[in-house]
Amino acid sequence: MATIKDVAQKAGVTVTTVSRVLNNRGYLSKDTRDKVFQAMEELNYKPNAIARSLYAKKSGIIGLILPALRHPFFAELAGFIEQYANLHAYKLLVCDSNHDALREKEFVDLLKSNQIDALIMASHTLDVREFAGLDYPIVTFDRIIDGLSYVCSDNYRGGVLAAERLIHVGCEHVAHICGNLQLDLLSNDRTKAFLDVMDKHGINPIIVQTQTDVFDYKHYDNMIYPLLKDHPHLNGIFATSDLLAAHVLRACYEMNIKVPGDLRVIGYDDVSLSELLVPQLTTIHQPIQEMAEMAVILATQAQEADRFQQAHVFPVHMIQRYTC
Amino acid sequence: MATIKDVAQKAGVTVTTVSRVLNNRGYLSKDTRDKVFQAMEELNYKPNAIARSLYAKKSGIIGLILPALRHPFFAELAGFIEQYANLHAYKLLVCDSNHDALREKEFVDLLKSNQIDALIMASHTLDVREFAGLDYPIVTFDRIIDGLSYVCSDNYRGGVLAAERLIHVGCEHVAHICGNLQLDLLSNDRTKAFLDVMDKHGINPIIVQTQTDVFDYKHYDNMIYPLLKDHPHLNGIFATSDLLAAHVLRACYEMNIKVPGDLRVIGYDDVSLSELLVPQLTTIHQPIQEMAEMAVILATQAQEADRFQQAHVFPVHMIQRYTC
Repeated sequence: MATIKDVAQKAGVTVTTVSRVLNNRGYLSKDTRDKVFQAMEELNYKPNAIARSLYAKKSGIIGLILPALRHPFFAELAGFIEQYANLHAYKLLVCDSNHDALREKEFVDLLKSNQIDALIMASHTLDVREFAGLDYPIVTFDRIIDGLSYVCSDNYRGGVLAAERLIHVGCEHVAHICGNLQLDLLSNDRTKAFLDVMDKHGINPIIVQTQTDVFDYKHYDNMIYPLLKDHPHLNGIFATSDLLAAHVLRACYEMNIKVPGDLRVIGYDDVSLSELLVPQLTTIHQPIQEMAEMAVILATQAQEADRFQQAHVFPVHMIQRYTC
Repeated sequence: MATIKDVAQKAGVTVTTVSRVLNNRGYLSKDTRDKVFQAMEELNYKPNAIARSLYAKKSGIIGLILPALRHPFFAELAGFIEQYANLHAYKLLVCDSNHDALREKEFVDLLKSNQIDALIMASHTLDVREFAGLDYPIVTFDRIIDGLSYVCSDNYRGGVLAAERLIHVGCEHVAHICGNLQLDLLSNDRTKAFLDVMDKHGINPIIVQTQTDVFDYKHYDNMIYPLLKDHPHLNGIFATSDLLAAHVLRACYEMNIKVPGDLRVIGYDDVSLSELLVPQLTTIHQPIQEMAEMAVILATQAQEADRFQQAHVFPVHMIQRYTC
């Protein structure tokens, strides 16, 4: 019968590291985690901790609420979350909420009645008070709710990078296309940072927001075509998703605006779509896979005592392709 | 207390139609179904049939297996399936299988142990024998398994439409890019039809297949760039997904091959992506939303006696945009 020491030796790590992997404690590289899991598998190691967690587990199901599966960012996020949930022996119950607060509440109720063990919320329309005093593992994406752990990219830094790049290449007539700022999301920091930097350079960008709760892609075009038509001198755009940026590129093609010649465009997310566009999109990379893994780890932390509000802000960087 | 007659009168349909809606029997237009549901809601009608079905329901969960959530076709399909499942008061347990037969088996086992009530399979790697004698509601996408109902688009017709269009515009040097034909999928009929029509016109297309079980998009490029490089006279391509076609368009842009001037391109699916591409993609439209609705209806048919193998082949048509 293999011991935790055997696992540590085989994986070439310390016993403490194995223990941290088993208890999903702290941040460990994917490489380390993989080595430990592989050693456990090869030695057929069945730790008490895992046995305990299996025993304590009521349904073996994690709930995931997101606003729209067909949005490429959320599709990629959901795919990774499902894969990591599976690695931790959890199944994934998915809710495509379309920002419907009632559907969010339904999933919170599933959690309260132990029909799911944890909840990852990447859509947040529900009143914050619904979460007050809830002692359940809920992890949020891109929103801070008192007492709940959250995962986000460094949105502010992303906005700074985009602004600095546009300024660096000489853009002076700048627009910013973003989600609706009334939704209380951390991604609004992208806008804040962008405006802060632009302001320092005496530039006052045009801001265009999507409607609240709208993932209707025709609506994107209804915003973007007038923007380009009414502002023929525009030479730089920062869009807060690659999908929005894709709509901008398509509109430019149809209106015979050359990118990057006439207009520079920067997106945000770095989903696969961004490499498929013509020209390939310059964008702010957020580490979707790592963020998904962390959300699953936070949601499945075995011991309730481990649950306290944790903020996991993931670094971003610019992927320079051909639109800026 | 409202009766079924009141509902029929308010909705302007017959009692039989209301009954068919309640029992998810036969094919009804979305319009009719919506009218009936709306009348039920307005009259606060609670039919015994629904009460029965709620009572009989064990978990209220439908399982969905698909090969890759990040693939735009499956992301859109999953989104619609979730929405229709919700309409029928079911939750959706999603498995991103990456063509792993073990994960498919896991979901079949959930069904056998009543942890889920029905299963929709849009990924099929598992040996057909695993399904032998299973008396559970399983609905397959794009594959025929003895005794199980299935949903697909009219793949053969889609292949014919693509071939005829390329011939009509004068393409003679033609290639076909498809999924791996070893996977026993009905979508292989797209290839069969395409080759049948081309053969009648004395054209022998180059065929390029993806590897089995691969949704690695870099692999797409590794197939497409050599194809375009080695066959500079190619003037027509039919790709069996819009995603493959998107990779073709991007490669053409980078290799300075004009679309549609030098090369015509036709995709398949008509996902939102196809409208975002530059130029917008000509493609074969399959009615993803209606197919999702039918899969949910077949999976949730209230009475077991209603369950017999049903084939639902949805019509396709060509959406002519700017690549062919």
